[in-house]
Amino acid sequence: MKNVVLASTSTLYGGTYLDYLLPVVTELFAGADEIIFIPYARPGGISHDDYTANAAAFFANAGIYVRGLHTFDNPAEAIAQGKGFFTGGGNTFLLVKQLHELQLMHVLEQAVKKGAPYLGTSAGSNIGGVNMQTTNDMPIVYPPSFATMGLVPFNLNPHYLDPIPGLPHMGETRETRIKEFHTQNDIPVVGLREGGWIRVKGEHITLEGTPDARIFLPGKAAYETKTGADLVF
Amino acid sequence: MKNVVLASTSTLYGGTYLDYLLPVVTELFAGADEIIFIPYARPGGISHDDYTANAAAFFANAGIYVRGLHTFDNPAEAIAQGKGFFTGGGNTFLLVKQLHELQLMHVLEQAVKKGAPYLGTSAGSNIGGVNMQTTNDMPIVYPPSFATMGLVPFNLNPHYLDPIPGLPHMGETRETRIKEFHTQNDIPVVGLREGGWIRVKGEHITLEGTPDARIFLPGKAAYETKTGADLVF
Repeated sequence: MKNVVLASTSTLYGGTYLDYLLPVVTELFAGADEIIFIPYARPGGISHDDYTANAAAFFANAGIYVRGLHTFDNPAEAIAQGKGFFTGGGNTFLLVKQLHELQLMHVLEQAVKKGAPYLGTSAGSNIGGVNMQTTNDMPIVYPPSFATMGLVPFNLNPHYLDPIPGLPHMGETRETRIKEFHTQNDIPVVGLREGGWIRVKGEHITLEGTPDARIFLPGKAAYETKTGADLVF
Repeated sequence: MKNVVLASTSTLYGGTYLDYLLPVVTELFAGADEIIFIPYARPGGISHDDYTANAAAFFANAGIYVRGLHTFDNPAEAIAQGKGFFTGGGNTFLLVKQLHELQLMHVLEQAVKKGAPYLGTSAGSNIGGVNMQTTNDMPIVYPPSFATMGLVPFNLNPHYLDPIPGLPHMGETRETRIKEFHTQNDIPVVGLREGGWIRVKGEHITLEGTPDARIFLPGKAAYETKTGADLVF
């Protein structure tokens, strides 16, 4: 049974790393005393070791030991035997390139679909969608494919941002960008505001957290969905 | 002799399409009574025909006839014989995919490097850089390559946006994204604010327009450059 949390962000404004997710993480990883951290998105270019240390410091609060995927001689085997996974945010292009080049995307997908608990934040949530094509990130590297794990039958736009009133800037709004995605694709998109996350238990998918989410379906006007709602399109 | 304008945006806040660029366009295309419009970036999914009509309506003010590249039976030959080019904004991934799949990127590069005047706005300016990897756009399609024309020996970030004070949003700032680009690449990046453009005459490259630009070099602190300055790094 799938057991997944895909969060918009790791850190809320004014908060510390992952603190608002502690109850969620405790429930998600109940029974696991050790999980694997996937550090490949490297926010700000942080090293794999340093990024893993940050994650480990948080998970110590939940009594869970964290080991970085980059430290295993055979990462595919480590994933197949993993008791749980956390993929942190950063640059989605970098994360997806690394997972494909190491041939780990499909291995991770299989492990999670078999029931290993999975937490993603930001870029780590993007890879839970059908593909990474609704990321906000800059294409700083060229991945061999944009396909991701498809843990949910839609795409995510983490850090979803409403238009800022009065801003005299002519760059596209987030909503405009997602609508452009739908001129070329027919995959539903969940605009996940900061403080929100998607909870997957088996085939049951709900919106959790504080804010509403914005739903984009091809050929239809975007609309709001309340926290607690089933995400079925 | 290269004769190029790469503008941050087509439209200023409160203005109409390209109006602020009329004197620039008139000088750039002096002597050309007909230019080719490249509509492939399709902002908001607009059709090639409609997008070309918008460009044609503006260029009529300068006495210049506009024909869309998509209307030629042999677009490569049309480019080789073109008297001038304008590539409009929209989605850079869509634009670059189309130019590569039709094998036109290199043909256009050669025509412009031989001296045909070129105007880009937004996505059309991104393709004047070394590669498209500092675009702000969403990866709505998968191009066969991120390489672009290299009309200038650096990359551009159009619609460059300074951090918005007081915004309680934890998504990366533009500066953070460009710094992440430099963890993986060593190409200089010009953050081109709206109202600014890059003027190339032969090997002479200057910043023009109203705002300063923000310059990002690998391993160095970002800094401001005044309009009128040579862009040499």
